[in-house]
Amino acid sequence: MPHPDLGIWFVGAFGSVASTTALGLAALQRSLVATTGLVTATPELAALPLPKFDRFVVGGHDIRAGSMEQSVRELHERANVLNEGLIKQCSDVLAQWDRNVRPGTVYRCGQAIEQLVDRGDLKEARTPLVLVEQIADDILEFRSDHGLDHVIVVNLASTEPPVDSEQLPKHWDELEQALAKGTASLPASCLYALAAIRTHSSYINFTPSAGISLAALRELADREGILYAGQDGKTGETLLKTVLAPLFKHRNLRVLSWVGHNIFGNRDGLVLDDPRHKASKVRTKDRVLGDILGYTPQTLVTIEYIESLADWKTAWDHVHFEGFLGTKMVLQFTWQGCDSLLAAPLVLDLVRLTAFEWQRGGRGLQRHLASFFKRPLGVECHDFFEQWQLLIEYARRAGEQSRCGPDGVTHSRHVHEN
Amino acid sequence: MPHPDLGIWFVGAFGSVASTTALGLAALQRSLVATTGLVTATPELAALPLPKFDRFVVGGHDIRAGSMEQSVRELHERANVLNEGLIKQCSDVLAQWDRNVRPGTVYRCGQAIEQLVDRGDLKEARTPLVLVEQIADDILEFRSDHGLDHVIVVNLASTEPPVDSEQLPKHWDELEQALAKGTASLPASCLYALAAIRTHSSYINFTPSAGISLAALRELADREGILYAGQDGKTGETLLKTVLAPLFKHRNLRVLSWVGHNIFGNRDGLVLDDPRHKASKVRTKDRVLGDILGYTPQTLVTIEYIESLADWKTAWDHVHFEGFLGTKMVLQFTWQGCDSLLAAPLVLDLVRLTAFEWQRGGRGLQRHLASFFKRPLGVECHDFFEQWQLLIEYARRAGEQSRCGPDGVTHSRHVHEN
Amino acid sequence: MPHPDLGIWFVGAFGSVASTTALGLAALQRSLVATTGLVTATPELAALPLPKFDRFVVGGHDIRAGSMEQSVRELHERANVLNEGLIKQCSDVLAQWDRNVRPGTVYRCGQAIEQLVDRGDLKEARTPLVLVEQIADDILEFRSDHGLDHVIVVNLASTEPPVDSEQLPKHWDELEQALAKGTASLPASCLYALAAIRTHSSYINFTPSAGISLAALRELADREGILYAGQDGKTGETLLKTVLAPLFKHRNLRVLSWVGHNIFGNRDGLVLDDPRHKASKVRTKDRVLGDILGYTPQTLVTIEYIESLADWKTAWDHVHFEGFLGTKMVLQFTWQGCDSLLAAPLVLDLVRLTAFEWQRGGRGLQRHLASFFKRPLGVECHDFFEQWQLLIEYARRAGEQSRCGPDGVTHSRHVHEN
Amino acid sequence: MPHPDLGIWFVGAFGSVASTTALGLAALQRSLVATTGLVTATPELAALPLPKFDRFVVGGHDIRAGSMEQSVRELHERANVLNEGLIKQCSDVLAQWDRNVRPGTVYRCGQAIEQLVDRGDLKEARTPLVLVEQIADDILEFRSDHGLDHVIVVNLASTEPPVDSEQLPKHWDELEQALAKGTASLPASCLYALAAIRTHSSYINFTPSAGISLAALRELADREGILYAGQDGKTGETLLKTVLAPLFKHRNLRVLSWVGHNIFGNRDGLVLDDPRHKASKVRTKDRVLGDILGYTPQTLVTIEYIESLADWKTAWDHVHFEGFLGTKMVLQFTWQGCDSLLAAPLVLDLVRLTAFEWQRGGRGLQRHLASFFKRPLGVECHDFFEQWQLLIEYARRAGEQSRCGPDGVTHSRHVHEN
Repeated sequence: MPHPDLGIWFVGAFGSVASTTALGLAALQRSLVATTGLVTATPELAALPLPKFDRFVVGGHDIRAGSMEQSVRELHERANVLNEGLIKQCSDVLAQWDRNVRPGTVYRCGQAIEQLVDRGDLKEARTPLVLVEQIADDILEFRSDHGLDHVIVVNLASTEPPVDSEQLPKHWDELEQALAKGTASLPASCLYALAAIRTHSSYINFTPSAGISLAALRELADREGILYAGQDGKTGETLLKTVLAPLFKHRNLRVLSWVGHNIFGNRDGLVLDDPRHKASKVRTKDRVLGDILGYTPQTLVTIEYIESLADWKTAWDHVHFEGFLGTKMVLQFTWQGCDSLLAAPLVLDLVRLTAFEWQRGGRGLQRHLASFFKRPLGVECHDFFEQWQLLIEYARRAGEQSRCGPDGVTHSRHVHEN
Repeated sequence: MPHPDLGIWFVGAFGSVASTTALGLAALQRSLVATTGLVTATPELAALPLPKFDRFVVGGHDIRAGSMEQSVRELHERANVLNEGLIKQCSDVLAQWDRNVRPGTVYRCGQAIEQLVDRGDLKEARTPLVLVEQIADDILEFRSDHGLDHVIVVNLASTEPPVDSEQLPKHWDELEQALAKGTASLPASCLYALAAIRTHSSYINFTPSAGISLAALRELADREGILYAGQDGKTGETLLKTVLAPLFKHRNLRVLSWVGHNIFGNRDGLVLDDPRHKASKVRTKDRVLGDILGYTPQTLVTIEYIESLADWKTAWDHVHFEGFLGTKMVLQFTWQGCDSLLAAPLVLDLVRLTAFEWQRGGRGLQRHLASFFKRPLGVECHDFFEQWQLLIEYARRAGEQSRCGPDGVTHSRHVHEN
Repeated sequence: MPHPDLGIWFVGAFGSVASTTALGLAALQRSLVATTGLVTATPELAALPLPKFDRFVVGGHDIRAGSMEQSVRELHERANVLNEGLIKQCSDVLAQWDRNVRPGTVYRCGQAIEQLVDRGDLKEARTPLVLVEQIADDILEFRSDHGLDHVIVVNLASTEPPVDSEQLPKHWDELEQALAKGTASLPASCLYALAAIRTHSSYINFTPSAGISLAALRELADREGILYAGQDGKTGETLLKTVLAPLFKHRNLRVLSWVGHNIFGNRDGLVLDDPRHKASKVRTKDRVLGDILGYTPQTLVTIEYIESLADWKTAWDHVHFEGFLGTKMVLQFTWQGCDSLLAAPLVLDLVRLTAFEWQRGGRGLQRHLASFFKRPLGVECHDFFEQWQLLIEYARRAGEQSRCGPDGVTHSRHVHEN
Repeated sequence: MPHPDLGIWFVGAFGSVASTTALGLAALQRSLVATTGLVTATPELAALPLPKFDRFVVGGHDIRAGSMEQSVRELHERANVLNEGLIKQCSDVLAQWDRNVRPGTVYRCGQAIEQLVDRGDLKEARTPLVLVEQIADDILEFRSDHGLDHVIVVNLASTEPPVDSEQLPKHWDELEQALAKGTASLPASCLYALAAIRTHSSYINFTPSAGISLAALRELADREGILYAGQDGKTGETLLKTVLAPLFKHRNLRVLSWVGHNIFGNRDGLVLDDPRHKASKVRTKDRVLGDILGYTPQTLVTIEYIESLADWKTAWDHVHFEGFLGTKMVLQFTWQGCDSLLAAPLVLDLVRLTAFEWQRGGRGLQRHLASFFKRPLGVECHDFFEQWQLLIEYARRAGEQSRCGPDGVTHSRHVHEN
């Protein structure tokens, strides 16, 4: 096995999604499992010279004590997924990676998240900018300790309450001053994003939290040539909405109302049970329909914490629509998906595609990753199949360039040989 | 209102779909209803200079006594759709069109269809070729009586048992001789298709019956420059399959099994309750998954006649799939759609698009209409969104040509001025 | 047809349930429809000498202008139920009954109900006791105008916010004084109940509003020998809960969580969309499970207004339960019921059974009617089948007494001969 | 732990239900699990002096090689239920009981069952009566080897094709002669039942196969004073039917059609995939509705083998019903239950209740066990709650007798003291 040259830095490393991703990565490195669920294993993308699994090492921040193994064991026991054998075969790798996890911060994360804290060594500081420095130091140490060429920061932490972005300066210089003076404030997810920018890491926001999405942060990221993508991974009910709504549109069936009730019982659910945190989530889940359909039917989205369901995100959607001659009809679906196991392969996909793009010399917003997100940054389109076309066309162009021989890659960044 | 110059000839004119289509056409001619449900009213297609509704007049064949008004009244009463007012406002038009309906034939249609016959004047003949002549005479009479430029034959009759096409000559000359000698045979749907070809009408097969799909018939149609498309309108459960299966493919979620149970209670359902007829239907419904996914999960499709449901096609689909790390998950949907009201606007779309293509001088198979069919002739692709691209690209090309000014249309057929 | 001797007084007479009940009563009087949906038409109850339909005349209060015919027409058009012919055949009767409807009051009904008012002549008064007098006068006038022996007041008005019954005197004498002094207050539903008591009418509360349920009002009703029953008609999702929960109990399957989402779009839904009104409803819907199961699983009940659904109350319930050896399983159901048409026959049943009991000389709380209510007054049991036993046993006893000959009925009240 | 004095003899001992029952019994003997799922653990029955779990030892017949541990491991792996720890803690007990399993017979079981045979030592004989002797010898040997007071034979083998009982003699003497002469024939399930009678064991038929249900066999069992009960355990979809149908009846809602589609993928499903075997199953599932409702709505029941579902019996039921004023409404449910884990506790319940009744000196058909069966022998009633009353009333009577002191039990059989 070659020396790994790429780092994955999970914000929320001991959470269910990060731990499952780590388990999956370890299992793929050892060829213990198939690539089912990985978009990068579909024929359209598998042809690209994407970085292999054994080039990655994992680290991160968390606000809770624990370990990745403990987290996947909890998932196994509560949700009746994964299996004992697989966990055992990967526990040494997870234990190694656990050692790369540092205490995070709950700065302005909201009470529901603060209540989860069970350790005394979280980062604290006089100003948010000092916190950014502390976070950045952890990332740099990880990079140097492991001799990595590049790190990709992935936000997988619990959902923060919405940020009122209208109140914040649109330019980084102003925002930076306001943060220094204490006249503006940012939640933790933005501080992690700033630390990613500061350390010239790539950044992916798999959550609805603000992260890098604020105008001032995007300005800074673009100026620094940082690769980024987001936000809010599209794994279940919303994914189906963005698949089905185009059907109604193309067939000119008028959606009268679309109701979606989601229930689940993992820790994310506990945080979302707080109405302020839920607001972030419902907002991204709810807007896709109007954007696709071109008009706004009555919609209702709920997300409720039902403890017994553990990681099994169960959704019921009721679509009431009108067809020819005013006839009203109904489509209903129920979705029983295991959230962490739907998210984990997408996280690996995003990491691999971002690392690949970084190698090619890419910078800025990765629009071609829109299909992975409920609320794709910089892309208005929510139609899953149109988003898929963005990815496929990217793969075609990138594939052609990578096959051009030496000239085709001369402008790319240094790539670790393996 | 201009004099209509285009004819629609329904095989199965007093059936629920044909009668509902006629009602809808009449209502649209009088601007009594919106265009909801019409694909040709979506922005992508509405920009084309498609023939307006008032250019069409309706005629057809049927094997039962009755009338279009009686048929839509029955639909109204049994399925609780449509409304009294609309039927009344259109009943004069329907009565006019009823007068254009001629007795059809149940030649080799199978016993379940023969049992539906309730009139004594059906066409009979010594050889199938004579029947073709008789059918063609009806179409020609319709054309000349109404001074029409062109007729589009649409098969909406009940589903026949499958034809063993392997046993039939692949070339028309041979098949014609065999039919004459009585060493080969064809069911009624093929005879109607032959009559369409004979009269240089366009032909659309909205049913799973063989129609024009046999190699020898397609050879003849191509030779004669006939426009045609088919087969088996994609209105409900199969439509959803071809929308959802691409999702599973692109996300690399492995479908383990896909079960679809359909129940409904209209006359089509009664015919499909006969296992020989059902075979045709299940075959087209079942094959789409393998084609889209690239592998064959276990599938099960049933269609059962439940009288109380009348025209309400209700389907339950259970999709069992495997995600990352072997995790099994479930998507279920139930669909409650009124079959005739889902089909009718698509029939109008097909007729308008075919008439438009005929005006442009088109000939042969209309591949761009694949998204309308469960089993598109000459198109391997079942992915709804890829099929939709075929239609959109066609509309773009046709739109550009139609905007080129006089030259752009010089090669088209004579178009009735209105 | 005999002269009617029994009056039904609907609080909320122009509402959907009352108007549908009136339509159904008129249709049954004229033998236009079957008795489907009427519990009193089941063999167990049909054997009792219940009052026939033609003995009833309808009147009531409402806070909106309108008419019963207008209300059933709106139901017909929005929900696609009933039919034109039936409405026409009964419109003369409805028009007659409309003339018996008087303006009501929205005293302390909450803002959501006040917003529905569209007429200027609602009752107002200095004290609630004066309002009771005014309401009672309307009832007495109805009784004397029509020469009725007895009136049954049925509360079908929109749901009020919950009353804090702990803050109110438990005895009528004290409450009466407090109302006179203005140191206590009661919402309209209680004032109607008091007017029923004042006029020696029977009283049925088909809604979750307080009505007669307060201790002081029950004390007064019992003292005055008033027949009453309530509250909150059990028509749909809760009915199913009280049918299914006993199964889980008897099979010792442990319910882990029970989630019920209800959506509908009638005027009641609009009122319930106000969280204060919804609180009354959710409270009665939610408590039945713990009472039946003997332990309290996690429950969630929502009721949301989705306009397009009109009267079609659609519910999705997800029951997560544990079986042998810790195995978790799932039962889900969806219910698509037309609320007014589920409620109306039960209202007729309650009226007939109450009139019958009144004839027999009964007084006080009618415990045997528990199966009709989500929150049966004075009955702890929510198990539908145990509640059904109460009704059946009552019918058996009453049936035996009524067959005893003259002596069996000597103690009953005067019964109008027909 | 006392010496066990009661034997359970499973026909189909290595099957999924028998093995799960054995695992559960072992786990209960060692207090490793709760009694969730056991009807005998509900308050109504737990008060009876039922035999404790440690009084039972397990043996049986099977037609396949294998072991109970292997079977529960397969269940664990395929269906993702049970857990590794529990299986390990009970594997020594299962291994002991495996040694009590003897080769069975597939005499007249149908081809689908014969195909399952994977061992060469099955019983064969010239006449069925000789087979009965051989089976009886195994049971007697089991009883004497373990010093048991009584054995309860439980049929858990795969479903046989229906027996044409009309063709068979109604009296045992005639049937015995016919069997001896070879002019009549019986499938294996009847031979096992005869062996139970021959050995004075109790007999329970948890399957739809004929077993003891033939008139001649019941005559013999009654004459010999054998305790028996059956048939076809009511575990899932049919259970729900018998819970919900009474609701429709009591509320006078007319069921128009009731469609039930069942899919599952265990070995039973494989056998049922053969139409001849399926006929037995569908017959018992289908008849309950007419019996409860008092009229026969259109019904449809399918059972299909979908391999990926393993033991997860998944059912979709669609109930179309008519309410007041002809309004059609819909109730749908989906059931996701693990078949073996629903059946196993009921098997333990039946065994305990039968052993208890044997101790009390009971003989003949146990009508009070009707609620456990889809097609209760000798009981016309299918309403679950009425059946439940039979059980509760039995428990009340038996509880009273058992509390009467010495006299109350003088007539009971000898009971092993523990």
